[in-house]
Amino acid sequence: MSLQKINKKQPLVHCITNYVVANFTANGLLAVGASPVMADAIEEAAEMASKANALLLNMGTLNDRAIQSMKLAGQSANAHQIPVVLDPVGAGATVFRYETAKQLLELLTISIIRCNVGEMAAIAGADWESKGVDSGEGEIDVAETAMQLANKYQCIVVVTGKQDVITDGKRLEYVDGGHVKVTKMTGSGCLLSALCAAVLACGAKPFEDLVLLLNEYKKASANSYASIGTFHTNFLNELESTAGGNQ
Amino acid sequence: MSLQKINKKQPLVHCITNYVVANFTANGLLAVGASPVMADAIEEAAEMASKANALLLNMGTLNDRAIQSMKLAGQSANAHQIPVVLDPVGAGATVFRYETAKQLLELLTISIIRCNVGEMAAIAGADWESKGVDSGEGEIDVAETAMQLANKYQCIVVVTGKQDVITDGKRLEYVDGGHVKVTKMTGSGCLLSALCAAVLACGAKPFEDLVLLLNEYKKASANSYASIGTFHTNFLNELESTAGGNQ
Amino acid sequence: MSLQKINKKQPLVHCITNYVVANFTANGLLAVGASPVMADAIEEAAEMASKANALLLNMGTLNDRAIQSMKLAGQSANAHQIPVVLDPVGAGATVFRYETAKQLLELLTISIIRCNVGEMAAIAGADWESKGVDSGEGEIDVAETAMQLANKYQCIVVVTGKQDVITDGKRLEYVDGGHVKVTKMTGSGCLLSALCAAVLACGAKPFEDLVLLLNEYKKASANSYASIGTFHTNFLNELESTAGGNQ
Repeated sequence: MSLQKINKKQPLVHCITNYVVANFTANGLLAVGASPVMADAIEEAAEMASKANALLLNMGTLNDRAIQSMKLAGQSANAHQIPVVLDPVGAGATVFRYETAKQLLELLTISIIRCNVGEMAAIAGADWESKGVDSGEGEIDVAETAMQLANKYQCIVVVTGKQDVITDGKRLEYVDGGHVKVTKMTGSGCLLSALCAAVLACGAKPFEDLVLLLNEYKKASANSYASIGTFHTNFLNELESTAGGNQ
Repeated sequence: MSLQKINKKQPLVHCITNYVVANFTANGLLAVGASPVMADAIEEAAEMASKANALLLNMGTLNDRAIQSMKLAGQSANAHQIPVVLDPVGAGATVFRYETAKQLLELLTISIIRCNVGEMAAIAGADWESKGVDSGEGEIDVAETAMQLANKYQCIVVVTGKQDVITDGKRLEYVDGGHVKVTKMTGSGCLLSALCAAVLACGAKPFEDLVLLLNEYKKASANSYASIGTFHTNFLNELESTAGGNQ
Repeated sequence: MSLQKINKKQPLVHCITNYVVANFTANGLLAVGASPVMADAIEEAAEMASKANALLLNMGTLNDRAIQSMKLAGQSANAHQIPVVLDPVGAGATVFRYETAKQLLELLTISIIRCNVGEMAAIAGADWESKGVDSGEGEIDVAETAMQLANKYQCIVVVTGKQDVITDGKRLEYVDGGHVKVTKMTGSGCLLSALCAAVLACGAKPFEDLVLLLNEYKKASANSYASIGTFHTNFLNELESTAGGNQ
């Protein structure tokens, strides 16, 4: 029960994320008992990261200031043994995003890359046609590519989609279920990345706990099925109740 | 059925918009089957626009970086025959916004200006007292001013309010209905501008399809009537069902 | 009935706030009949503030541009006798935030400081361990510290938590009630700060009206009790109905 662990530990998760999903990410973390702090100023990125239990770097609405802050926060987190999660949003959409993702992966020790197939394909240099920040289409061996990426960067790779794939380069797990409607709720992947960070801040066994998280997240989306506006409400309700937080 | 056309085509809409409504705009586009991508970095604005099916320029929370990105994205869209929608948020509120709106209209080929009466009055140089980003009050012939603006910039002008007015400088249509409560939901006008961009990405007959969109949007707000929190939920539900997207 | 006064006066509230809660703040102000305008560009901050009925300065996602805009807007508001509310988000979290809060308090005439205990402790230089933007833990005489701060800066200090404390340096009131779940909804404190600004724009008797507002806000959260997703919806519904705005 990964969400329950988060709710018990209540980790402080420093998020440098995009303004599209910042509110949803904060509310999703709060729903399961974590404490989000969004701070992307160059002047405070390193200090804030050093005080957090985990750091999330999300490339959703990238700009030069945010990149500098991500580097400073990431280096600070690395220096303080604080786990870092990278969500390379739209890495396949523009050269700017691709190069930023590569820079962050080269510069920092990343514990988890959480992405969709299109973003993974871009980082891995595979042949793929991304569609903006959506996954897009192409031919690729998802598991094989994920394992290569995990071994190359010595991290856990979580590739989400109709079927999630998670690997640490040796172990490989598939997670099915959920509901496609979750893709109609902006930030559902971004929030999952934030929850991965929260899990790292709690778990003695990251890989096993992340597999549990993916299952809990799939189940939450399946249980939330409704018209899309109602789905948003249901989804936060589901996350909270799965975390045992509705007191 | 404009929203159904969007749901069938699933266009990629590049939005350079404000951080107040970015989440709502993304969720509204997703609700009807479009793919939103928010990207406002100077480094990628032109490339992202060139890959999109339509571009939205929304001045809601303007800053110097965003203006540069809007110009680069707009010129790229023009070069690639990708339609551009301008939402001159608060054009009457400050000199900075007024001058930015004029610059964008002079520099770029804009397909649609979607605004409220106060914003139109400001751009047209009419006597009007705006109230922040709200329409405000004054005496003006809305249809006449809209037609002048449409002819001056060779575009379609959509002026929304209790009664919507749409014109391409020759044809003129009025759309009534809806519910005033939609004005209590921030971003309802901004989302409509984004949907206008999505319609342009689909429609062989922009003017007719936009008239349909305005009717569908009015109907969605009328059908969503409830206390304001519930109204938000209902409105996304309505957009989705109108688009035929609730599977 | 402070929210009813807001709904009657419909003040224009200029918010320089963070991108995490900008949407929720705008929707909360709209729910009670106020007109929010979010504008943080250096080029327009002073002009926008001069046209507003109240100004909110919220440090949630601070950056150097926003600080310059806050100073320009604040000086403009002071020059035009427009009340200014400061929400020193995370003042105890980083040196950057602490120093910014102090700078704003030294430079500007602030009418209200709305904060949590951790933020107050930081500004007052008291011994306290903040947790990101959450209050954190420590030993402090909240009422005593709040009165000192109110006298030092000649303003009203509103410290919210399980029990709210409000003082103008002479008078002191406690407000109990509400529901802890409101702390699981990001921006609940930020929205309250915005409503404090709206009250200042309306009230002949700020202190009394703010005490009423705190009671109405506590009651709204108590009445909204539900799973967290539903709580969000209920809370906006409650604010609207308390303001008498559900027509």
